[in-house]
Amino acid sequence: MAKKPKAFVGVDLGGTSMLAAVVDRSGQIVGEAKRKTRAERGAHRVIERMVVAIEKAISRSGVKYKRIGGVGVGVPGPVDPASGTVVRCPNLGPTWNHMRLAQRLSKHLELPVTIDNDVNVGAVGEHRFGAGRGCDNLVAMFVGTGLGGGIILDGKLYTGWRYAAGEVGHMVISPDGPLCGCGQRGHAEALASRSAIERDIRAALEAGRSSTVVDILTRTQRTDMTSGVIGEAYDARDPVVVAAVERAQYYLGLLIANCVNILDPQRIIVGGGVLERMGDAYLIPVRHTAVQHYVSRDRADEIGIVPASLGDYSGALGAAALAQQRLS
Amino acid sequence: MAKKPKAFVGVDLGGTSMLAAVVDRSGQIVGEAKRKTRAERGAHRVIERMVVAIEKAISRSGVKYKRIGGVGVGVPGPVDPASGTVVRCPNLGPTWNHMRLAQRLSKHLELPVTIDNDVNVGAVGEHRFGAGRGCDNLVAMFVGTGLGGGIILDGKLYTGWRYAAGEVGHMVISPDGPLCGCGQRGHAEALASRSAIERDIRAALEAGRSSTVVDILTRTQRTDMTSGVIGEAYDARDPVVVAAVERAQYYLGLLIANCVNILDPQRIIVGGGVLERMGDAYLIPVRHTAVQHYVSRDRADEIGIVPASLGDYSGALGAAALAQQRLS
Repeated sequence: MAKKPKAFVGVDLGGTSMLAAVVDRSGQIVGEAKRKTRAERGAHRVIERMVVAIEKAISRSGVKYKRIGGVGVGVPGPVDPASGTVVRCPNLGPTWNHMRLAQRLSKHLELPVTIDNDVNVGAVGEHRFGAGRGCDNLVAMFVGTGLGGGIILDGKLYTGWRYAAGEVGHMVISPDGPLCGCGQRGHAEALASRSAIERDIRAALEAGRSSTVVDILTRTQRTDMTSGVIGEAYDARDPVVVAAVERAQYYLGLLIANCVNILDPQRIIVGGGVLERMGDAYLIPVRHTAVQHYVSRDRADEIGIVPASLGDYSGALGAAALAQQRLS
Repeated sequence: MAKKPKAFVGVDLGGTSMLAAVVDRSGQIVGEAKRKTRAERGAHRVIERMVVAIEKAISRSGVKYKRIGGVGVGVPGPVDPASGTVVRCPNLGPTWNHMRLAQRLSKHLELPVTIDNDVNVGAVGEHRFGAGRGCDNLVAMFVGTGLGGGIILDGKLYTGWRYAAGEVGHMVISPDGPLCGCGQRGHAEALASRSAIERDIRAALEAGRSSTVVDILTRTQRTDMTSGVIGEAYDARDPVVVAAVERAQYYLGLLIANCVNILDPQRIIVGGGVLERMGDAYLIPVRHTAVQHYVSRDRADEIGIVPASLGDYSGALGAAALAQQRLS
């Protein structure tokens, strides 16, 4: 009889880079490898690079290949986990549409492979190994360029009927609000993401207000307002940036209240670039707004709104955890 | 060995009346009894009246008492189903706070008893016997004086960590919107319920606009704008009433889109007084608004937004179904 697998591989496939990590049963990363994605070269080449990254991570881990139980991959777009098919990956290009990624990777690696959406995978990572440990009903949301969410109910990833659940960034919270990337108005992503903060700062600059953000961009020779740029101007208490951040915090609080009122989770985990730069202090006004809108006050003080704790590793760790769940 | 139960009793406990129904395994009501609640006489007397209604329904059904498998009760307020305790019932009064209803009823009836919130129970009824049959991921919402919801995931009632899930009426969809009964602004209940429609009509009247609703109230000697009054004025295409109804339909559409984007259900069932009076036509503009905000377009045309089909019986049927699930 085959020995029990010692470890699983989790892969976080992003638009610019990919991270493969070999994760043992206790959640320790025992080997990892990073690669550029090079999406412009097409899906076929990206898959080759994934195979190399996975094999390198395994070889670095010292775990024997045959003691690897399988591979999980978090993909930046909607997927059908049942068939292992990518529905589409806007960031990676049209060659990914309807691609049977699990099957193709599995053939190359001679290992079982499971895939899911990157945000879902991040939620699983935080649940199993991060800020969600010990809590079986939670919503994880990641605030960056976009605003995505994953839902854990009764200890398991909840994916919905079409595997489309958790799209908290597209909940309407202010119908006359700004346009969202999806083409509709007033979605949470258009109000509470880093992109929303950037848009509000740019609008203030165009209206003739001055802001240290301009100096920071000049000094760092950047054109895009990363979380780092916004964070630095915020720390300097720049009024334009503070106002934009406070608006985003307010809407994030409303979004969290909506999640609490419909799903009654025990914990809300907030991660992503903005949170990593700004830290737990970012959540103080968010909590204040959210709590005001809770309709059930019973044990409301036990509902945690907490920062994610795995940083860039939530995806790879979650993908490995999902592989362990699904492929054991 | 005891014979298999033939039927379960479902009780819909309302603020003004209660309905007990004996329901066989196929969902047929084989006996029923209705009673006034008379909440002002206190919980003890209401429980006595429930026992009488249940016993009368059983005797009318012809099913032998010992072939009844148990009783389910839908309660108008938050409950703890695990312990069978009512948390509170604002409509019934403070004598209901923290009352061990399941235990007390069970002692009187010598039958096992389970309880849940009335809206959750209505959702279970529609899922098992009504507009939700064959669909294992759905949100049911009931639009009347308030706006409540119940969630079925993977075929089972989803109640959340504090048994507080499904409060769709308190999702913020317009933060600067009107005050909600809960004290906060912009909740769906304050924008899409019958009370919201009534408030908008009254505001128009106070602003000096004329409406046939005044004549209808005078003729019917009513002061409150029931769904019947609103429906009659709407059918007569009264401009004030049409505008108020259309506003409510718009916000109901946004609320449904939010539910679809976070939970990805296959069906949304809409019931309650407003829907019963206005019928399926009420949902046409609602669907139009909702679909525009779906972020995943995959198979979006298969997501049904449909009227509830059990009318006043959803609660009693759902309570009986819940009793069958939990007490078998």
